[in-house]
Amino acid sequence: MDKNSKVPLYLQLMEEIIQKIENKTYTEHQKLPSERELCSMYNLSRITVRQALQELEREGYIYKLHGKGTFVAAATFEQNLVKLYSFTEEMKKLGKTPMTQVISFEEIAVEKRLAEKMKLKPLDEVFQVVRLRLADNEPLMYETSYLPKRIFPKLTKSQLMEKPMYDVFYQDYQIIVTRAVEKFSATHLRDAEADYLNATVQQPAMLIKRFAFHQDQLIEYTVSVARGDKFDYTVELT
Amino acid sequence: MDKNSKVPLYLQLMEEIIQKIENKTYTEHQKLPSERELCSMYNLSRITVRQALQELEREGYIYKLHGKGTFVAAATFEQNLVKLYSFTEEMKKLGKTPMTQVISFEEIAVEKRLAEKMKLKPLDEVFQVVRLRLADNEPLMYETSYLPKRIFPKLTKSQLMEKPMYDVFYQDYQIIVTRAVEKFSATHLRDAEADYLNATVQQPAMLIKRFAFHQDQLIEYTVSVARGDKFDYTVELT
Repeated sequence: MDKNSKVPLYLQLMEEIIQKIENKTYTEHQKLPSERELCSMYNLSRITVRQALQELEREGYIYKLHGKGTFVAAATFEQNLVKLYSFTEEMKKLGKTPMTQVISFEEIAVEKRLAEKMKLKPLDEVFQVVRLRLADNEPLMYETSYLPKRIFPKLTKSQLMEKPMYDVFYQDYQIIVTRAVEKFSATHLRDAEADYLNATVQQPAMLIKRFAFHQDQLIEYTVSVARGDKFDYTVELT
Repeated sequence: MDKNSKVPLYLQLMEEIIQKIENKTYTEHQKLPSERELCSMYNLSRITVRQALQELEREGYIYKLHGKGTFVAAATFEQNLVKLYSFTEEMKKLGKTPMTQVISFEEIAVEKRLAEKMKLKPLDEVFQVVRLRLADNEPLMYETSYLPKRIFPKLTKSQLMEKPMYDVFYQDYQIIVTRAVEKFSATHLRDAEADYLNATVQQPAMLIKRFAFHQDQLIEYTVSVARGDKFDYTVELT
């Protein structure tokens, strides 16, 4: 560390640790030295070391486990929010093997609020499908979809277990998604979601509400909960 | 509650509570009846009441304070991710009075990682500006901006205290933002950020990294931390 440099010390320490991650001195999920150890290794104050670790965590290089220490993170997925995408296709492009588990499949009637969101009338019926999305056996997203029964009258759980949902839409109903609107916000994981996602309830998570249309007709409303440490969503504004 | 309806009971309870919020029976920041009280008011199981409250929290109608109970939330801001926007302009459109506090203003040199992000060379100098953005005196975002010194050679803290940053860019440097790329992810609030944002560290928060360009030149890199309960970001995909 160069204490006379105009580069702040916490940025210098970040650079040092990133280099060690990139040249595999520190490997994925390996435990990093503790704050105290880093202080003495580099002759830095606790404040500086803490700031560097906080920045590294936010930049996705490391993660903390309460009471256990700091570890090297696995790479995150970048999701480009320009074109319509499907989880299955995106994961294949990244060389990952996508998998979907159908957790529940129910027929329900909607109340006023859901009806308004879905451009339905109260008491209209929908399929409520809860699915877990995995890549290379790692659970990444917990999704609850609402599909109007009027549009997919004969939908079954086994269809959704056999092939991707959008393949069911296209092959069995000749329906494709032509437009989608997504709303992003930050959320808490619920206990059940955390269990399915192999995460802790304290972990940050992204909530994505997707409204998918075929022409002007809403065909799908999906609420996804994505592990915050696994996804980055990018949008270009002009 | 109609136990014979096909509308699940938790959705019926949600509708009931939303109605009371909308007709002001329950007003902003008012405490809701406890889980136990709701169970006996509506003759529902604890599981049903809990599911309704979790959904209402996720939909932004209510918020929980650890050990204190459940309260009616204030309205959130919807941010449309289609066009370039400025915090100042967006808040004015919503009838809110925007305000910005400059928390710190420093001249630093960048290390390799920041240099790469900003298309600079290591040791190039930038202004690091930390600002708190408020609407009607309520703190909403904590922003750290990096501005290349080469582009804004004479920038001062008092300029940024006097007027919006994009007005400084335009009026003092004849530079406008023509394109921006934003990356979204979920994050934890740090202690200092939570203090500034009047939030708790457990609260979900959105991390937004903004790369703003004038033509092909990067003129601003800003890392914003936004209260998760206050913002929704919407994007349309085709």
